[in-house]
Amino acid sequence: MSVNRSANRSASTFVDVPRGLAGVVVADTEIGDVRGIEGFYHYRQYSAVELAQTRGFEDVWHLLVHGTLPDPARSAAFAAETAALRRLPDEVTAALPAIAAAGRGSGPLAGMRTALSLLGAAKGFRPVYDIDAERRRADTVVAAAAVPTMLAALHRLGRGLEPVEPREELSYAANYLYMLTGSEPDERRARAIEQYLISTIDHGFNASTFTARVIASTGADVGACLVGAVGALSGPLHGGAPSRALDTLDAIGTPDRIDPWIRERVLAGDRIMGFGHPVYRTEDPRSRMLRGIAQQFGGPLVELAVEVERQVEAILAELKPGRELHTNVEFYAGVVMELCGLPREMFTPTFAAARAVGWSANILEQAQDSKIIRPAARYVGPQPPAAVPVLV
Amino acid sequence: MSVNRSANRSASTFVDVPRGLAGVVVADTEIGDVRGIEGFYHYRQYSAVELAQTRGFEDVWHLLVHGTLPDPARSAAFAAETAALRRLPDEVTAALPAIAAAGRGSGPLAGMRTALSLLGAAKGFRPVYDIDAERRRADTVVAAAAVPTMLAALHRLGRGLEPVEPREELSYAANYLYMLTGSEPDERRARAIEQYLISTIDHGFNASTFTARVIASTGADVGACLVGAVGALSGPLHGGAPSRALDTLDAIGTPDRIDPWIRERVLAGDRIMGFGHPVYRTEDPRSRMLRGIAQQFGGPLVELAVEVERQVEAILAELKPGRELHTNVEFYAGVVMELCGLPREMFTPTFAAARAVGWSANILEQAQDSKIIRPAARYVGPQPPAAVPVLV
Repeated sequence: MSVNRSANRSASTFVDVPRGLAGVVVADTEIGDVRGIEGFYHYRQYSAVELAQTRGFEDVWHLLVHGTLPDPARSAAFAAETAALRRLPDEVTAALPAIAAAGRGSGPLAGMRTALSLLGAAKGFRPVYDIDAERRRADTVVAAAAVPTMLAALHRLGRGLEPVEPREELSYAANYLYMLTGSEPDERRARAIEQYLISTIDHGFNASTFTARVIASTGADVGACLVGAVGALSGPLHGGAPSRALDTLDAIGTPDRIDPWIRERVLAGDRIMGFGHPVYRTEDPRSRMLRGIAQQFGGPLVELAVEVERQVEAILAELKPGRELHTNVEFYAGVVMELCGLPREMFTPTFAAARAVGWSANILEQAQDSKIIRPAARYVGPQPPAAVPVLV
Repeated sequence: MSVNRSANRSASTFVDVPRGLAGVVVADTEIGDVRGIEGFYHYRQYSAVELAQTRGFEDVWHLLVHGTLPDPARSAAFAAETAALRRLPDEVTAALPAIAAAGRGSGPLAGMRTALSLLGAAKGFRPVYDIDAERRRADTVVAAAAVPTMLAALHRLGRGLEPVEPREELSYAANYLYMLTGSEPDERRARAIEQYLISTIDHGFNASTFTARVIASTGADVGACLVGAVGALSGPLHGGAPSRALDTLDAIGTPDRIDPWIRERVLAGDRIMGFGHPVYRTEDPRSRMLRGIAQQFGGPLVELAVEVERQVEAILAELKPGRELHTNVEFYAGVVMELCGLPREMFTPTFAAARAVGWSANILEQAQDSKIIRPAARYVGPQPPAAVPVLV
């Protein structure tokens, strides 16, 4: 084989960008945006927090994947459409016990990844470039409607309990809590979880959303895209763990122990779970909303959380002046989920259920483009020598 | 809620880059490189084609994930280590019939995605940032060793046949053909498939490799990364279909029909399957090697393929002068796989089996970094109005 190895790819074909692609624009989007300096984020042209305060989950789901908020008739029709899709195909239902048993150490999120992969194959999802926009959207709705059912069943099977069949007449959020616990939640808890779910549907171009779009850009089917996104969300740097912040509250225990506990960590340079966000320079708007919801419940956990938040900010102002650090979404999300009776192993999976709707919108938007996302790497290892080098 | 919406994120925080991130450097890599202008690609410091001509699959696997070519003792040890991992955990084996049945319309690649997701959970793969490099590497080897077993079993189950147990004393490639067909392949066919597999282990920063690295950058486990990569590979713009080029040869049928068949397509502006590559400006080195392998087999299919290649280049030179177009890896890969008795539905899955080793190396390299890959999108939709807009 004779090749001229000196005529390598010209360096000028490379574009250098910040590490981790920070700030690099990969796509134009009409789905939403995060304004870190203002502490504001929106879905389409609507404030996400205001949507959470005034709408049901299905309406915002409709906004994300259809592009518009539904009028009352359309709202009822979409709610009925998605409710009818909660029941899993028989072959997926039949596989859940084996998935739960095999993944006993890995939890419901990894199990849901497997079940979702199976669902995509069972439903015969086709490559996104081979089908029209209506069919693509229908595939995303089938998948996102099935996620809560999978999660609740996997959770129950993991505890030796029988799965609870979905009920169509309940709202998305109420039905999710019902399938998890086996009893119908009160109105206040169902609404609190619904507001949490709406507030986490989408949040800019995070790693799981980006993963879904890279996979979609190859033309792969909706199932392949969502399964990849679930995988990215399972990474500790991304999906995080709303339960960690709660573990912190447990460790502190009572309000009188806050000051020494926090002081010790801050002086040691340790991270305080539930505080700080890479984008927001001001209060996280999700945190503000969730604190309000928690305060409507009240009780010792909420009082402790509010007092921890106050003292952390005060201690930081004293010990590290100029470094603004606020609670992030994890902090009060954990408190709200605990108040609503969600088991801690379900905190990140519940986040994934909401985010499945955001991923759906992003897959649909990406599928309108036909350009594969394919960046480059720069080879920095030893150069191949000219002589045949592989014989030993 | 009062926010100052005019103080949006400054445009200067955005970096504009070519569409699809073409040429954008996402990572430094020591795994390999593709030199499109030269028609040369390499793994570490070794020509990939020379590796395929002189080494076994397991040695190149070792090179990719351990960084060095093994000496004879190490080679034998690694071959034994990987052979012992071919047998699947019982809970995965038990789930395969249900996975094959549910995915009857979607094929073995989607089924393998599900089985691999299950394997990762069953093996309790941990987040890559929570474990050391040795454990990460072990997880990738467990997964990549299991892929051929899953694929062969899913293929056979899909045809109503019993899966064939792996045999440890056969090479990776020979065992794969054995598990697919139930009979031990002859030396020549086993070696031809082995050379094909080696030549497709890695090939620059393609979309599935990038997907695996984005997921790894969140700290997710090796199973999550590989499952996402399989999803990206399933996209028609990426994994392609080596069977398409073979379908073209079938459609042409005999050498006398080449000229009118090709001329008609070229004049209509149709794409000719098996020709053209986004990176190579000269002959694809994999194509050159695979043609040589095919010619050692000989026979009417190979003669037809060589003649189609010759006439396509001649007709293009005549009708579209100046536009160089060569066969890509799909063209002779399809011919070689057909000659070796691989069923066409297994062409892309077989590619995935080899690429699992390349993904492994990329996951391991990415896990040495701790920076999440998180690009940006530019919001171009309607701006949220100042007034509360969501009440209807």
